[in-house]
Amino acid sequence: MMQPKPPVFPSEVTKFQSGTFTTNPDLLAVEEPLEIQLNFIDNDDIVQKTVAITMRTPGHDFELALGFLFGEGIITSMQEVIRIRYCESIKKPEEKGNVVKVTLRPHVKVDLQRLERHFYTNSSCGVCGKTSIEALEISHCPAIPLDQLKIAAQVLTTLPDQLRKAQSIFQHTGGIHAAGLFDTQGKPVTIREDVGRHNAMDKLIGSHIKSPETLQQCVALVSGRLSFELVQKAIMAQIPLIAAVGAPSSLAVQLASTYQVTLIGFLRDKQFNVYTRPERVL
Amino acid sequence: MMQPKPPVFPSEVTKFQSGTFTTNPDLLAVEEPLEIQLNFIDNDDIVQKTVAITMRTPGHDFELALGFLFGEGIITSMQEVIRIRYCESIKKPEEKGNVVKVTLRPHVKVDLQRLERHFYTNSSCGVCGKTSIEALEISHCPAIPLDQLKIAAQVLTTLPDQLRKAQSIFQHTGGIHAAGLFDTQGKPVTIREDVGRHNAMDKLIGSHIKSPETLQQCVALVSGRLSFELVQKAIMAQIPLIAAVGAPSSLAVQLASTYQVTLIGFLRDKQFNVYTRPERVL
Repeated sequence: MMQPKPPVFPSEVTKFQSGTFTTNPDLLAVEEPLEIQLNFIDNDDIVQKTVAITMRTPGHDFELALGFLFGEGIITSMQEVIRIRYCESIKKPEEKGNVVKVTLRPHVKVDLQRLERHFYTNSSCGVCGKTSIEALEISHCPAIPLDQLKIAAQVLTTLPDQLRKAQSIFQHTGGIHAAGLFDTQGKPVTIREDVGRHNAMDKLIGSHIKSPETLQQCVALVSGRLSFELVQKAIMAQIPLIAAVGAPSSLAVQLASTYQVTLIGFLRDKQFNVYTRPERVL
Repeated sequence: MMQPKPPVFPSEVTKFQSGTFTTNPDLLAVEEPLEIQLNFIDNDDIVQKTVAITMRTPGHDFELALGFLFGEGIITSMQEVIRIRYCESIKKPEEKGNVVKVTLRPHVKVDLQRLERHFYTNSSCGVCGKTSIEALEISHCPAIPLDQLKIAAQVLTTLPDQLRKAQSIFQHTGGIHAAGLFDTQGKPVTIREDVGRHNAMDKLIGSHIKSPETLQQCVALVSGRLSFELVQKAIMAQIPLIAAVGAPSSLAVQLASTYQVTLIGFLRDKQFNVYTRPERVL
C-alpha cells in the first residue's frame, strides 16, 4: 500500500538578526497538490471525474477527500463510499500519493449536471468552481437547533492554548493552519493541520464521517480567520459552535446567523467576541 | 456609473472579558462574491465566459479582475482590454456591483480550450479549477535576472510596520489581509487589502498593469503566509523579491528557487529569513 508523503521538508535558511546573516538547516511545511477523483455509475456507465485539486499538506489525505465531498454535499455518509485509495497508475514519480480516488456504491446518485456546473474542478475552498453566485447557497441544510450544545465561557478560553500545543507540524515550521474539535468540557477530540485552512477543516470533518453525531456535540476552533466557506462547512456538518483565533468576515456572520450557528471570533488572551447566538455560551 | 460597495459592514458583538459579557457596535470586513466575466471574439462569435468567482472585500474590483487575468496569463497587457465595467443587467439587487465584465479587443486570441480545461470557473487562488496537476506549471515565464533589484536588510525590516499602518480596513476590523509594493528605499508604492490574500495580491498587480515595469523594480510584502500561488503571481508579474510576515510553504520555496525570485519569510521584529537568492539583500 502506498504511504502518505511526509508533512515537513528539510531546507536551508539564511537568517538576518541583529545586523548579521547566519545560515542554518530548517524545516518547511509541505504544500503539494491533491487531486480528488470520483468514480461512480451514471446510466450504467462508469464515470471518472476530477472534482477538486487543492494545495494541501500531505497527511490525512483520505479524510480530506471525504470531508471535502461531504462538505460539498456530494456524499452524505460513509455508506455511500465503497473504496478510497491513492491512484496507483501515476506515471510521474513526484505525483505518486497526490491523487486520491473515491469510488461510490452503485446505488449512489450523483447529479452529474450539477457536478459539471458547480463542482467541475472545484477547490476545497467551497466557492471556486461555482459557475454562478447563486450556487453559493447551501442546499438542503437545516438550521441547527438552539438547544443543541451549551458551553461555559471559561472552557472556551482554554481552547487556543490546547490547539497550539497539539499542532505538531506548527512546532517544526511555524507556518501552518489548524482546526480542532473539542467537547463541551474542553477536551480535544481531533486536531488537524494544513497549509490551507479549508483543508484543515475538511480533514477534521472527514475524520468523523463515520460517526457524524460527534460533530453535532462538539465545538470547532480554527487558528486563523473565519470566512464564509469555513462556516458553510460547519453548517453542512451541523457543528453548532465555531470559534476562531482571528476575525470573522461579514458573510461568515450572516451565514451563521441564518443557520443558528454560534460564531465566535478573536478567541485569545482569555477573551472572545460572540457574533451570533450567544445563548449557547454560559 | 455604479459605485463600488463599502468594504466594512456594521454589526453588533457580545464581548467576553474578565468574566463578564458586554454588547457593543462593531465593524466587520465585508466578504462578498465577485464574478469575473470575460467577453471576447472567437471565430467571429462573441463569447461570454465566467472565468472566476472569488470571495473578496469590495473595493479595487477592476484591479482585482485585471490582476487575476494577468496572473493567469489570459491577458498580457492593458492594450488587450477594450473595456472593464460592472455588469448592469443584474436582476437581484444584492448582486449589483458583484459582477465585473472585461471585454477584450477583437484581435486578442483566447485559447478557449485551455480556458475550458484550466480556467473554467477558476478561482483567484490560481490553483482551483485546473483539471490536472500538470496545469499548475507556469507557462512561458522567464526566470528573473539576478541583477534585477538590490535592497538593504535594514530597509526590509521597516516594511511590516509601514504595511500595518497603511491598512485602513484592518484598523476598523482587525481581520483582513494586505499586500504592499515598496521601492528599494522602503517607500510604499501601493497597498491593497482583502479578506482573501490572493485577492490582495491580484489587486496589487492589477493596479500596475498599465506600467508593469514598476513591479519589476519593487519588492512585495504580504501580511500572512507565502503559498505556491502567491509566488506564482509574483513570477507572472516579474516581481524580483517577495516577503511575508509569516512562513513560506515548501512549494513556494521551490518555485521561487526555479524562477530566481528572492523569497523572505518571518519578516517581523526587525528580523527575517531568506529562503532563496540572498544575493539581492545587501
